[in-house]
Amino acid sequence: MRMSRLFLRTLRDDPADAEVPSHRLLVRAGYVRRVAPGIYSWLPLGLKVLGKVEQIVREEMDAIGSQEVRFPALLPREPYDASGRWTDYGPNIFRLKDRKENDYLLGPTHEEMFTLLVKDLCSSYKDLPLHLYQIQTKYRDEARPRAGILRGREFVMKDSYSFDVDDAGLEKSYQAYREAYIRIFDRLGFEYVIVQATSGAMGGSASEEFLAVAETGEDTFVRSPGGYAANVEAVSTVAPDPVPFDDAPAAHAEKTPDTPTIDTLVDHLNEQFPRDDRPWTAADTLKNVLVILEHPDGTREPLAIGVPGDREVDAKRLEAQVSPAEVHAFEEKDFAAHPALVKGYIGPAVLGTESDSGIRYLLDPRVVEGTRWVTGANVEGSHVIDLVAGRDFTADGTIEAAEVRAGDPAPDGSGPLELARGIEMGHIFQLGRKYAEALGLQVLDENGKLVTVTMGSYGVGVSRAVAAVVENTYDELGIVWPRELAPYDVHLVATGKDEAVFTAADQLYDELVASGVEVLYDDRPKVSPGVKFKDAELLGMPTIVVVGKGLADGVVEVKDRATGERSDVPVAQVAEHVRGICR
Amino acid sequence: MRMSRLFLRTLRDDPADAEVPSHRLLVRAGYVRRVAPGIYSWLPLGLKVLGKVEQIVREEMDAIGSQEVRFPALLPREPYDASGRWTDYGPNIFRLKDRKENDYLLGPTHEEMFTLLVKDLCSSYKDLPLHLYQIQTKYRDEARPRAGILRGREFVMKDSYSFDVDDAGLEKSYQAYREAYIRIFDRLGFEYVIVQATSGAMGGSASEEFLAVAETGEDTFVRSPGGYAANVEAVSTVAPDPVPFDDAPAAHAEKTPDTPTIDTLVDHLNEQFPRDDRPWTAADTLKNVLVILEHPDGTREPLAIGVPGDREVDAKRLEAQVSPAEVHAFEEKDFAAHPALVKGYIGPAVLGTESDSGIRYLLDPRVVEGTRWVTGANVEGSHVIDLVAGRDFTADGTIEAAEVRAGDPAPDGSGPLELARGIEMGHIFQLGRKYAEALGLQVLDENGKLVTVTMGSYGVGVSRAVAAVVENTYDELGIVWPRELAPYDVHLVATGKDEAVFTAADQLYDELVASGVEVLYDDRPKVSPGVKFKDAELLGMPTIVVVGKGLADGVVEVKDRATGERSDVPVAQVAEHVRGICR
Repeated sequence: MRMSRLFLRTLRDDPADAEVPSHRLLVRAGYVRRVAPGIYSWLPLGLKVLGKVEQIVREEMDAIGSQEVRFPALLPREPYDASGRWTDYGPNIFRLKDRKENDYLLGPTHEEMFTLLVKDLCSSYKDLPLHLYQIQTKYRDEARPRAGILRGREFVMKDSYSFDVDDAGLEKSYQAYREAYIRIFDRLGFEYVIVQATSGAMGGSASEEFLAVAETGEDTFVRSPGGYAANVEAVSTVAPDPVPFDDAPAAHAEKTPDTPTIDTLVDHLNEQFPRDDRPWTAADTLKNVLVILEHPDGTREPLAIGVPGDREVDAKRLEAQVSPAEVHAFEEKDFAAHPALVKGYIGPAVLGTESDSGIRYLLDPRVVEGTRWVTGANVEGSHVIDLVAGRDFTADGTIEAAEVRAGDPAPDGSGPLELARGIEMGHIFQLGRKYAEALGLQVLDENGKLVTVTMGSYGVGVSRAVAAVVENTYDELGIVWPRELAPYDVHLVATGKDEAVFTAADQLYDELVASGVEVLYDDRPKVSPGVKFKDAELLGMPTIVVVGKGLADGVVEVKDRATGERSDVPVAQVAEHVRGICR
Repeated sequence: MRMSRLFLRTLRDDPADAEVPSHRLLVRAGYVRRVAPGIYSWLPLGLKVLGKVEQIVREEMDAIGSQEVRFPALLPREPYDASGRWTDYGPNIFRLKDRKENDYLLGPTHEEMFTLLVKDLCSSYKDLPLHLYQIQTKYRDEARPRAGILRGREFVMKDSYSFDVDDAGLEKSYQAYREAYIRIFDRLGFEYVIVQATSGAMGGSASEEFLAVAETGEDTFVRSPGGYAANVEAVSTVAPDPVPFDDAPAAHAEKTPDTPTIDTLVDHLNEQFPRDDRPWTAADTLKNVLVILEHPDGTREPLAIGVPGDREVDAKRLEAQVSPAEVHAFEEKDFAAHPALVKGYIGPAVLGTESDSGIRYLLDPRVVEGTRWVTGANVEGSHVIDLVAGRDFTADGTIEAAEVRAGDPAPDGSGPLELARGIEMGHIFQLGRKYAEALGLQVLDENGKLVTVTMGSYGVGVSRAVAAVVENTYDELGIVWPRELAPYDVHLVATGKDEAVFTAADQLYDELVASGVEVLYDDRPKVSPGVKFKDAELLGMPTIVVVGKGLADGVVEVKDRATGERSDVPVAQVAEHVRGICR
């Protein structure tokens, strides 16, 4: 492709709304262009990259015998009512009505549709296992679309589903997809980790995510020296053993004026109630955090969470636990509705479904039987000391909502955790029978008995991968494409005004194209070498070939975009040389 | 692909809602499946055909230097407000709001978006001519989705646009697309005609349609022996020369009791007022038809149309003329609002914007100056005779709303028209500056002066083409694919229970696949030969190879699906023979 004909204008300035490098670079380099928040057009170069990602995904899906189909994006409400997701998705899906006032949605994922299709066409265990996939445009009405195509409201996804007659089959299907995903992400060419995950609104049990490692990622994950890796939402806390409490002193309420924060409380304790063995720390206090859950049906439920005072409640971990409910702040009006709650001094005595307030109360798993706590006495300016879990208070259960910190032990005993950030690129999980049960997908087994099918669900963010690769490989000059995704193998630049240069470059271009090399040829006659070089770095083709001043000495410069290595190659050998690189 | 693994179930019965053969066959043969009215899923075989159509279209677009991009389907309202189409489309587009209550639509076509993108990226005549296209999912909320994927509400279209600095450029671009379209439709392999067309809601001037010839088509077109061809909406009437009327008798009202229809009126005229030279016929009468136009802004406007009594008003021709207004019946309440109108006896005297009724009055082009008519006298039971156009009445203009009939003269003098039916597969037209003006797309010309860009718009119904091909080539046994679109070249059938048959068939399958032939292999062990043959005919691959009883004599049967021709080929030569056919 000659740049004089290419529909492209590179931009000098970053888009005003760009938060992350991939967004900035893909817009500046003319790969994508914003149409509305979270909604982008693909320009010629971007569409070529997207097509290459699609092709890799398609090849690896075909290789494991998954069959490609394509569902509509515009879907009727009924199946999503049957599964409960019409409601569960809350404001996160686009809903609309047709001219006859029938309800439709723009599909966020297609579990229901696949389930119904298989129900329609399959009736026997002989039809299974069955693997289906689609590469398709999906929609989510994100509250905060951000980061360009990393988190869009219209995006391309590969979603696939496995259908098996029993759990062993599902496990086998899951492993087949897991291995295909490893091949896909290896080929996409960015650093990734496979982490344990929660399944969120999707339902189901076993679940792993493929994360592109990126500082700008939205997801936090943990890993241990021993190989444990998990999405932070999925990390389970290592609970200590119960502590004997036979000789623990009785709980006693104490005046603790002017202690509105944990820090002031700890200072006050160390001043007024010093301990012999060790000073009080925030870890000795039990903080009771109140939130409001808004359930998909619109009902509001107050929830109290008890965590050690040295840890915050992690909003994402909490959200993952209570999904599909949304978490909102506990407001003044909520306090007014629960007069038993003394703001700033709330203790377990007034919490729990059995208590006066009737508010559900869940504890951090570290609050095991026998542990002693300083916590609110439910009286303004007072705390209670030596309150023993299991003796003086109980709760309605536990919840994994406290923050995970570097150094926390891995749940499998594989050592201390470190935290890092990533971008969710793929998600595989064993859905089980949730959708098959909701929609009645059964087949006859070998004994002629009807059994409910068990399903797996496997997604790849196809358009997101384009940005994630950039995020993973860019440098200060621009995009750096891995060869398998680059829109063109070679960026051929002709510099200067010398006619001989353009004649030689034209000839090289024709020769390379004829031998199957994909070449972007900067043949623009009146553009300065500086601008051409800048564009070449920005656009990011893996090999840059410069025909210019060196031509007088019979050489052409060949440069590796990623490493910056340059070499002068004799004109007569350059086509062969470049073909060798691109092979 | 082995049929034992293929996600496919062929159906014996036609779908209840199937109106046309392609719908019936594509559903029965498991190519597509209905999700909601006008909304279909593509199953593995169907998606393969769709991909082949896309590939043909893509190759021919690339060949003329059109560059592929992809716009979102979910689009903000603003550009469609600027062009007026947010309103003009009326109930034919899907509208929705996002969580912030902003208005969006699902794109029916993308003129606005392309115009804005080019405005963003281009500023000089040097950037033009520019050709862009996309292959993309589009949406229209059809009042009556019908015929399966022939007229869906979600469908795949290739839409492309040309941008030129002047009319000569547009004409050249238009011709380039026209030729590319001829290549596309030649390759798609169905009988088509290129007809002159109206441009409807799209705006613009020169316009042609590519119609697949099909009895079940929704569009009527005309053609003449001399090569004229036009969509019926675009046919212009050959108006006769004005007639001298100096010695015409004066108009005279006559009692015509009990003549509620044209036929009864003509009988009455021949009985009571016989003419010497020739009998009265319906063509002597002037019928005034009243309708209500509903404009996109919701206003209702009455309209009167005068046509010779031997012709009906053609709803589609009328709709094309008044678009984007919609046509509704003139109801009792409308008569009540216009007391000057005497139902059944309405004459020109009470019609026209200058008349008492104030109703706009448009005449068929045949009602030229000097022609004499029998028409309503605006009195119950009376008609007026010898009413001379131009002497006794005038109107507000003419309209091409009367039906076109076989035998009518072609407007270019190329002979009598014949009527036929077709399916609109492609539409090319010179949009001109409508969108560029509405959205401010200007570039600097060679003299440094800002000029408004002129555009062309070119569409191909990609998903519709799949059905149109079936419609064009099916037979009583099922689908008959042209080789270029068939999901597989060869349908290999192994029949019987003999292990040797399956061994031979397996071997042939492997050999063909290894040499690049696409084979669908019916390896199902317990399915009867009859069912397998029926499936093969229904599915429609161009070559059917049967390994069965003949194997004992060392031969395999090779059958051409389209012609039904069979030949026995020695086993040792069959792979080479089939490769030869598929080449």
